[in-house]
Amino acid sequence: MLGVCYYPEHWPESQWHIDAQNMRKLGISYVRIGEFAWSRLEARRGQFTFEWLDRAIDILHEAGLKVVLGTPTATPPKWLMDEHPDIAPYDADGNVRGFGSRRHYSFSSEIWWAESARIVEVIAKRYGTHPGIAGWQTDNEYGCHDTTVSWGPEDLKAFRRWLRMRYQTTDQLNEAWGSVFWSMEVNSFDEVELPTRTVTEPNPAQRLDFWRFSSDQVAAYDKMQVDIIRKHSPGRWITHNFMGFINDFDHFQVGDNLDLASWDSYPIGFVEKFPFTEDERNRWAETSHPDIAPFHHDLYRGVGRGRFWVMEQQPGPVNWAPWNPVPKPGMVRLWTWEALAHGAEVVSYFRWRQAPFAQEQMHAGLNLPGLDEWSVGGLEAHAVAGELAALGDLPESVQAPVALVYDYASYWATTIQPQGRDFRYEELAFRWYEAARRLGLDVDFVRPGADLSGYKLVLVPCLMQVNEAALAAFKNTDAVVLYGPRTGSRDEKFRIPENLPPGPLAPLTDTRQTQVASLRPRLGDSVSGSVSGRAIRWREYLETTATVIATFENGDPALTSQNDHHYLACWPDEALLSSTLAVLAEKAGLETLVLPEHIRIRRRGNLTFAFNYGAEDWTIPVSGEFVLGGQVLKPQQLAVWV
Amino acid sequence: MLGVCYYPEHWPESQWHIDAQNMRKLGISYVRIGEFAWSRLEARRGQFTFEWLDRAIDILHEAGLKVVLGTPTATPPKWLMDEHPDIAPYDADGNVRGFGSRRHYSFSSEIWWAESARIVEVIAKRYGTHPGIAGWQTDNEYGCHDTTVSWGPEDLKAFRRWLRMRYQTTDQLNEAWGSVFWSMEVNSFDEVELPTRTVTEPNPAQRLDFWRFSSDQVAAYDKMQVDIIRKHSPGRWITHNFMGFINDFDHFQVGDNLDLASWDSYPIGFVEKFPFTEDERNRWAETSHPDIAPFHHDLYRGVGRGRFWVMEQQPGPVNWAPWNPVPKPGMVRLWTWEALAHGAEVVSYFRWRQAPFAQEQMHAGLNLPGLDEWSVGGLEAHAVAGELAALGDLPESVQAPVALVYDYASYWATTIQPQGRDFRYEELAFRWYEAARRLGLDVDFVRPGADLSGYKLVLVPCLMQVNEAALAAFKNTDAVVLYGPRTGSRDEKFRIPENLPPGPLAPLTDTRQTQVASLRPRLGDSVSGSVSGRAIRWREYLETTATVIATFENGDPALTSQNDHHYLACWPDEALLSSTLAVLAEKAGLETLVLPEHIRIRRRGNLTFAFNYGAEDWTIPVSGEFVLGGQVLKPQQLAVWV
Amino acid sequence: MLGVCYYPEHWPESQWHIDAQNMRKLGISYVRIGEFAWSRLEARRGQFTFEWLDRAIDILHEAGLKVVLGTPTATPPKWLMDEHPDIAPYDADGNVRGFGSRRHYSFSSEIWWAESARIVEVIAKRYGTHPGIAGWQTDNEYGCHDTTVSWGPEDLKAFRRWLRMRYQTTDQLNEAWGSVFWSMEVNSFDEVELPTRTVTEPNPAQRLDFWRFSSDQVAAYDKMQVDIIRKHSPGRWITHNFMGFINDFDHFQVGDNLDLASWDSYPIGFVEKFPFTEDERNRWAETSHPDIAPFHHDLYRGVGRGRFWVMEQQPGPVNWAPWNPVPKPGMVRLWTWEALAHGAEVVSYFRWRQAPFAQEQMHAGLNLPGLDEWSVGGLEAHAVAGELAALGDLPESVQAPVALVYDYASYWATTIQPQGRDFRYEELAFRWYEAARRLGLDVDFVRPGADLSGYKLVLVPCLMQVNEAALAAFKNTDAVVLYGPRTGSRDEKFRIPENLPPGPLAPLTDTRQTQVASLRPRLGDSVSGSVSGRAIRWREYLETTATVIATFENGDPALTSQNDHHYLACWPDEALLSSTLAVLAEKAGLETLVLPEHIRIRRRGNLTFAFNYGAEDWTIPVSGEFVLGGQVLKPQQLAVWV
Repeated sequence: MLGVCYYPEHWPESQWHIDAQNMRKLGISYVRIGEFAWSRLEARRGQFTFEWLDRAIDILHEAGLKVVLGTPTATPPKWLMDEHPDIAPYDADGNVRGFGSRRHYSFSSEIWWAESARIVEVIAKRYGTHPGIAGWQTDNEYGCHDTTVSWGPEDLKAFRRWLRMRYQTTDQLNEAWGSVFWSMEVNSFDEVELPTRTVTEPNPAQRLDFWRFSSDQVAAYDKMQVDIIRKHSPGRWITHNFMGFINDFDHFQVGDNLDLASWDSYPIGFVEKFPFTEDERNRWAETSHPDIAPFHHDLYRGVGRGRFWVMEQQPGPVNWAPWNPVPKPGMVRLWTWEALAHGAEVVSYFRWRQAPFAQEQMHAGLNLPGLDEWSVGGLEAHAVAGELAALGDLPESVQAPVALVYDYASYWATTIQPQGRDFRYEELAFRWYEAARRLGLDVDFVRPGADLSGYKLVLVPCLMQVNEAALAAFKNTDAVVLYGPRTGSRDEKFRIPENLPPGPLAPLTDTRQTQVASLRPRLGDSVSGSVSGRAIRWREYLETTATVIATFENGDPALTSQNDHHYLACWPDEALLSSTLAVLAEKAGLETLVLPEHIRIRRRGNLTFAFNYGAEDWTIPVSGEFVLGGQVLKPQQLAVWV
Repeated sequence: MLGVCYYPEHWPESQWHIDAQNMRKLGISYVRIGEFAWSRLEARRGQFTFEWLDRAIDILHEAGLKVVLGTPTATPPKWLMDEHPDIAPYDADGNVRGFGSRRHYSFSSEIWWAESARIVEVIAKRYGTHPGIAGWQTDNEYGCHDTTVSWGPEDLKAFRRWLRMRYQTTDQLNEAWGSVFWSMEVNSFDEVELPTRTVTEPNPAQRLDFWRFSSDQVAAYDKMQVDIIRKHSPGRWITHNFMGFINDFDHFQVGDNLDLASWDSYPIGFVEKFPFTEDERNRWAETSHPDIAPFHHDLYRGVGRGRFWVMEQQPGPVNWAPWNPVPKPGMVRLWTWEALAHGAEVVSYFRWRQAPFAQEQMHAGLNLPGLDEWSVGGLEAHAVAGELAALGDLPESVQAPVALVYDYASYWATTIQPQGRDFRYEELAFRWYEAARRLGLDVDFVRPGADLSGYKLVLVPCLMQVNEAALAAFKNTDAVVLYGPRTGSRDEKFRIPENLPPGPLAPLTDTRQTQVASLRPRLGDSVSGSVSGRAIRWREYLETTATVIATFENGDPALTSQNDHHYLACWPDEALLSSTLAVLAEKAGLETLVLPEHIRIRRRGNLTFAFNYGAEDWTIPVSGEFVLGGQVLKPQQLAVWV
Repeated sequence: MLGVCYYPEHWPESQWHIDAQNMRKLGISYVRIGEFAWSRLEARRGQFTFEWLDRAIDILHEAGLKVVLGTPTATPPKWLMDEHPDIAPYDADGNVRGFGSRRHYSFSSEIWWAESARIVEVIAKRYGTHPGIAGWQTDNEYGCHDTTVSWGPEDLKAFRRWLRMRYQTTDQLNEAWGSVFWSMEVNSFDEVELPTRTVTEPNPAQRLDFWRFSSDQVAAYDKMQVDIIRKHSPGRWITHNFMGFINDFDHFQVGDNLDLASWDSYPIGFVEKFPFTEDERNRWAETSHPDIAPFHHDLYRGVGRGRFWVMEQQPGPVNWAPWNPVPKPGMVRLWTWEALAHGAEVVSYFRWRQAPFAQEQMHAGLNLPGLDEWSVGGLEAHAVAGELAALGDLPESVQAPVALVYDYASYWATTIQPQGRDFRYEELAFRWYEAARRLGLDVDFVRPGADLSGYKLVLVPCLMQVNEAALAAFKNTDAVVLYGPRTGSRDEKFRIPENLPPGPLAPLTDTRQTQVASLRPRLGDSVSGSVSGRAIRWREYLETTATVIATFENGDPALTSQNDHHYLACWPDEALLSSTLAVLAEKAGLETLVLPEHIRIRRRGNLTFAFNYGAEDWTIPVSGEFVLGGQVLKPQQLAVWV
């Protein structure tokens, strides 16, 4: 089904009814509203003006649209910031990040929690049982604009409280952090500082704890909102709209609060944000890289425990990337179908009509700026609506054969301690995902410690800390497992394990790591054997008596195998990665189909979808009964068959 | 005529008479002095020591030199900064920009206005009627070192005052800025903040207003000085020495205060400052790009309503660019003549003698450091003086056939909202100017709304906001007009026009814009038709029933024509730009002469000047009576013919 | 002899005895301890816990190891920072650089001096006469992490005191700095500000004075510690462990306090830190550039007036460079021998055992992380120990034939006023050193003004200020002398000399400089004559009647000779530099041997050492009696012959 994001407060009231009718005409079922409207709901403390929102919701409801209501906490109004300046977040240099855009709050502010609870409760009470309200969105895009972590006095207070809970005594804290190194020991929790503005690098264990703390706060803050809404709005689901490529907090943990996950899909904008090569950025500038949206669909399906929406779908050019091209004709339709193929329940476009004012005036909508006239994106969305109606209900998504273990804490740990400037967790995970998808494989994202039963192939690009649950899951799986570099290289306290890396995985893999090299861009080491390619960026020195599948130039083991447990002792280049996954997929009994770089396929129930992100036709090498498209897949087109 | 900048306070008094005599010998007529001398005129509050300046002026006057006296407000002394620390400007991060160099004041400080008025009045009274004083310079290089805009508490107060005047009520302000977006509404003008240090980008309409305010302040501050001087110095002209490539304030507005404009011409230093390619920077490193100085001559002739000086002419290597090469032999003479060809009344060199101390000790003068010995630049200036004497009075500059509409507000608007990282207004305007000059055309710079009568071809590289005056001028002109990308794309409130861009130009051009793409460096779109080349950086999607002169690859209109009004829907590459201007110049009945990249020509009255900035001879393809040089133009040489 | 850095406080006490035994087994003689242990020695003010250190020293001593005891002042503990927050240093933006790593103190804090004296005295008294203590190290790596210069209120106070001492009156200060320029004059020393956060660049003379002041403070602070230790620890030597490529303070001046110099040699980490080309960085990534360690060995042998140690020798990969590769097999041994060849008395490895926790957990040790098991580096160190034992005492180092005049003040002056973005003193000096070493020459580093007798060739890459002592040394030497660009271009007050550069060297060189060009990377000027190559980056315009050995393209003098005094008027490329040194070495009667880029030789007494840093064999072209290695020098190997 399709949805749209709508801002009644941006348009004259006379327009609302027209908009509702046009939404229906286009094929919209859900409308998200309200998430930035605080200043219109409470222009001064306690002076509530809900009447306009009452009318807007009634109009939408009466038009047969279902409303998703957002809590307005991403935009605390100016009067509140002036009353309580300590709501504002701080950057790592200790400067206030002030009012004038959005997300100008720190999760550590106790006053902010009280104010958030207050406004959420008022709204949840007023609309919780309105028949037009289908569900709720908490806040908006946690973590966007680097707002997970804040570095102010309130944050320091909250961090000290969190540490006191975690460690009980400073002796335990000093021991955990190895504070004896460089005389960093503290005698009281009130002596702890934030790990910033030090002369040289701060303690990595302290940094990891500060990141854990910051992540915990997001989840707890979200839960506070969720609890209030549940109390006052029985029978409605609750979601949050996550962003793409944000790893500052553990999304699985926030997902635990929610009924379903949703995310904001800006496939073209993200081409600039992710560390692609310039060649890739040019190639995919007007279509997006074929794995960006799917990566997140699969991730958030995992975060939502099987249920997810796209809450904001890019409908044309946006305003916020370094360059903002017009998507190629057909891409808005393709992205919508790609989301549905990956199991999205609803794809909701951002936004109904382009605003002629303020920060996002260059962001396309389904209608031209200020007009009642469908944009190119609006026309494509309308086409999808027609196709969806013709197809009827889509089948359920089923468990994929491949699991990718995605771990936010490993992002934090490798960011804190890259050891080589280009060791980027998110890039490694993305490349592993891409390589699996290039083999035509469907992929589920799972968190460390999740039950792995039912999977044939488990990919662990990098899991720095293998805790007991994760270890148990690895021990218990029947799948072929591939562990990537740095897996098991730290314990909970950010220490090197006593038995050296991969620490707890030593028994499963029969390996021990004695040295590690990070490699400048031109350096590398060739790998040969049953798989081949090059180690780039990172190369480990292993001792093993396990089977050696491939070796480095000097004969050292590069890829080892003990039963179904494989360890890859480097950052693989594309050739090494794809040959490794091909060999392991075969070992796992998986059928693969090597796809061109611009083609991807994905199954949903009994349907198979194929998508063409490139400039050349692709003749589909399998036969099937086509329900959309046909055997020859044209650029920016899709095909669906049974 | 020639002039020079001189600092008697830097040299022993015994030297002054020698210097004056040597100036006369070299061929100098005007001497600018005094603009950094505050600490020598008033070492402590109220303790004035004007006697030395009296003697210096007398000596110069008695030697037959005319004095241009600068007000010393660019360098408030330390005792004053200590008395009133809130004079100091702030950077956008909220840090004070302190004492120790120059321009350390904010235009918003009321105390600073009072102190400025005090010192200007004292000086104007003392020297206003001295027979040696020919004219005045206010302050020094407004805006240099990013000093137009300041971000401190005084600036916030002044901005709030300005907004109160402009909008009367916060309702009107909220409506103008579209503050409803992201709950940015304010209940009082005292709730407005400066548009900086926000979590993500601040409101663009707010930013534009802050820039307008900052620009207004420069003009008002300058007018305050001008009014005082006029009162006490009847019959003397007043100028200000503008800098190059500074767009932070509206120079036309400051020009309105003045009798004539002047500017500081550092052709080589500016090669590093302007966004040239590395190839261009290497090619023009020792000569300057052939359009840098001319661009500013033509701009400031416009700012000065026909009258301008070069107040500071680079006489050799300077100290402030990333690299500071020695100009090729002949360039100091060539630059001087180029200025004269463009209508300069006086070319004044900076400075008489290289200082052996302080910040600019690596800046060449007409004399070697600390010595009575002409430098290479001094010798070339002397040669010009001889040539000028031989030629007699130069004819008046006349109106050029081509007008380029230059708009500071469009610089602000595109800087606030580039939408593509490389959309740089100043670069677009420069390239359009360069293309016209490569066709051998003389160009006048006019402000938006200026009367366009008499012009054959009007170039509007980008005029974001087409106000009523500008629209009237376009309607009334008989010229062929070319509008570039983004023209008419915003109204006064920074909103997208209700009829979509080009807004008020829709009737004149019969176009409507539905989408906009900004393009990464490798992306582009080929354009073909009566003109051809490539769209780079920026590409618009137009609807039109006007004549389509050229189309994009997919057939969309790229260059349209309705009568004499042409709209170019992209950022053109060099080929597209030059073919477009060639076609339109022909349509306008202008005779063109395609010049090599290193040659430029310019007319002044009945004289035609040709300049060779390159490494190869150029045989002048027209015949004339040479008054300087001859038919074959050698590198770094010039020719003048009737 | 070999040593090692050890942290008993990082390991359980039960481990200490085992470690001591293993050190002996490996071949260690010296153990440095204690330099970061303050929080374990004084966890709260006055609560000293020396007992563990007593036991650690006793254990080492009883095992036959000699202890070097470090003062713990590089890591003031948290309780002290909380008591006296003004100990903390400030960055140039005025922000505190806080607790949480190391070196978080300003040399200007008077309280910090008192606290330092207090802890040093307590430790010196307790251990000064312990039979196990062989010597002392003051603090740790002065200047590391940009900690020489601090920009806080305490620093401003101290700078004003220093200026009052230096100038007596503000008139003299104003005159020295040329403050009249831009009205920067002050009426009181309390009006002086730190040269930072100005609107445009601050006064260069003021900046130089602030750098001199900052350097003086390091030397005085060190002397304070040295005086206390000498008083309480008779018969022990004192050193400081300097870092590599730090030029913020005058190391010769600190060296004057010490009995011997020592330094911390991280040959691979420094490859990333020095401004090499990317090609060089790739080529030497896993071996280090063959001159990095030797450059510092020779520099610190000079600083130590003939005596130096390597206090910290890299034993494997480190943690702090952008990339941290594993050294090629053999390099730890090679680096150790290279140090010994250059005269090191002891080479001490950092560290005994890799720490599994805190900031340096990725830094290799002689033992694997947390284990009693030698790493690759440990095994190579053990091999050296065996070779050393077999060889017996090494002969003394003797004076080299070549002196390189190294001047920290010229680093400061050229950093303050590069004039061309890539004029980097340290790079120029390094390239001159490299060129001499490529000719097989041994080099001594001397400070300006040092007696030059005994040298055959004196290299002066750049000596901005030639004071009387330096001039006398140049006048008195019999050596062939080569002066590089900018030598003599400023006087003590940072003024251009009255006779123009090279100022005081004019009589010796018969040259006068009238112009200077800094050149963008692609610009340059070819030089030909008896030497040839290209001028890059910097080119001077000389007048001379001396012999012109080579000229620029336009015939201007590039290399001049008057008797044995030569002036090179440019930054030479490699060809010009090597041909110049070859010609001058021949003139000086020196025998040279042109070495491949990967080979270096060095003499120590009657021994000649050769080292192979590359990937290809080198057949040694001289005959000798080999005491280590043989005629064919394999990659990463060394040979020693008589």
